[in-house]
Amino acid sequence: MTEERKNSGEPFENERSTEKIVSSENMFSEKPTLEDIRSLQEEFSAERNWNQYHTPRNILLALVGEVGELSEIFQWKGEVKVGLPEFTEEEKKHVGQEMSDVLIYLVRLADRCKIDLPAAVLQKFEQNRHKYPAKKVYGKSDKYTAYE
Amino acid sequence: MTEERKNSGEPFENERSTEKIVSSENMFSEKPTLEDIRSLQEEFSAERNWNQYHTPRNILLALVGEVGELSEIFQWKGEVKVGLPEFTEEEKKHVGQEMSDVLIYLVRLADRCKIDLPAAVLQKFEQNRHKYPAKKVYGKSDKYTAYE
Amino acid sequence: MTEERKNSGEPFENERSTEKIVSSENMFSEKPTLEDIRSLQEEFSAERNWNQYHTPRNILLALVGEVGELSEIFQWKGEVKVGLPEFTEEEKKHVGQEMSDVLIYLVRLADRCKIDLPAAVLQKFEQNRHKYPAKKVYGKSDKYTAYE
Amino acid sequence: MTEERKNSGEPFENERSTEKIVSSENMFSEKPTLEDIRSLQEEFSAERNWNQYHTPRNILLALVGEVGELSEIFQWKGEVKVGLPEFTEEEKKHVGQEMSDVLIYLVRLADRCKIDLPAAVLQKFEQNRHKYPAKKVYGKSDKYTAYE
Repeated sequence: MTEERKNSGEPFENERSTEKIVSSENMFSEKPTLEDIRSLQEEFSAERNWNQYHTPRNILLALVGEVGELSEIFQWKGEVKVGLPEFTEEEKKHVGQEMSDVLIYLVRLADRCKIDLPAAVLQKFEQNRHKYPAKKVYGKSDKYTAYE
Repeated sequence: MTEERKNSGEPFENERSTEKIVSSENMFSEKPTLEDIRSLQEEFSAERNWNQYHTPRNILLALVGEVGELSEIFQWKGEVKVGLPEFTEEEKKHVGQEMSDVLIYLVRLADRCKIDLPAAVLQKFEQNRHKYPAKKVYGKSDKYTAYE
Repeated sequence: MTEERKNSGEPFENERSTEKIVSSENMFSEKPTLEDIRSLQEEFSAERNWNQYHTPRNILLALVGEVGELSEIFQWKGEVKVGLPEFTEEEKKHVGQEMSDVLIYLVRLADRCKIDLPAAVLQKFEQNRHKYPAKKVYGKSDKYTAYE
Repeated sequence: MTEERKNSGEPFENERSTEKIVSSENMFSEKPTLEDIRSLQEEFSAERNWNQYHTPRNILLALVGEVGELSEIFQWKGEVKVGLPEFTEEEKKHVGQEMSDVLIYLVRLADRCKIDLPAAVLQKFEQNRHKYPAKKVYGKSDKYTAYE
């Protein structure tokens, strides 16, 4: 991954050096993008002749199943700190796997619904900025709860 | 996957021009990437002083809430076709919004758990290729079900 | 509901002999009641010294996990008919087991939240009767969707 | 509620007087039973001509939606104590309403799948007693986690 990117002059890469980034130590890899994941999963399904099973509601229920598996890892933990310091390495790896399953099915669902998920996310951020003006809701948990 | 790509200098970008892509009309926008979304949400939360609420289990429950809202759009529909031809434009837009909420919280959860989600997804694809060899499970719904 | 029952001394028991019951062949067993299940689970947890883990959010996440497992049984099925005629006996038994897990955790959650679940359900039916007057929403799927 | 039961010699009734019952103050009302809820919901749907929409997967997705709504009440709360002392009366009432919605759809799902839910729960308790022998798992959170 790093090799692919080291000579990249792409706009988002450069954000790494801006002041905006608070916690640079836990940034995501730049690849795969959502489109990469969509394409990988499309190919994966086609190679197995599984598109026939990938109707929207089938995929949606599979997504629910994966959210359930993700929840099970957290279910007996009580409150958990940022960074999961209480988790073993094996447990953290397991969390990453279940998150991946959720993401793969979510991307697949968008693809099968012919919805441009990355574009939809940008629109949602725009909406959220209007819905929750920073000045109005700053640090107010009651507002926060009420607005959610 | 590796074989298909090993001679490629810009692996993901070039896929667009290969024959593999069946449904080029519904490809995702290349931006925002998962890292872009992570960064946007981090900034969004910091501006509102909301990081204090973003513990892993708080975010996980918020994710479950959004999956519920996504499910509600599909709940009285009976089986739904690929591309959602039965949905109104407004309903399709709503689906995109709820998917976005799920994705934003999933990315935020990974961020707060300090898990590199895109890297985890690549590993998961590698695992899935071993778990479901194309030849063995090709078009077999019984295998498919059993393997899932 | 009240009108139908106002002259009844043993309201629920007598329903069995009224004309209202359409599908008497698939009625539930009268026992265990919700209170029986609550009591059984309380005893089960106490005997294992597990009450310490049964905080509301722990149980809630366990519930989400079980809903996920229930969904997984239905995920690759496409639309499914009333009575599950396409399911094997083993699959039907599995469905009953996962439904039971969902119910046990839901009852446990109510118990740990000190909420009288059966009483709450009766209130909810009362609310729903006001929210969806039979005459207004009769057989209208659009109304139905809009009201939900 | 108590009046209905005071002369009852039924097995579950008697548990009330045993030493096992730790927290008698938060016991559930004895009515409605699961069969009562099933019957009430069947009638409610029939009166509105809604049975046509109540296919198993439609109801399952509605159930997922309600679990989402229940989760939303808990999402920004951090860890929550037994009995919900931090919740307002209004919030507690809301919790009871969402739990009721989950239960109503779960019962409806069982009914539409022709599964005797109370009977299935009793079998599940029997299984759980074998799976988690009290002596073996007593107070051991690691065992507990491993067994779950």
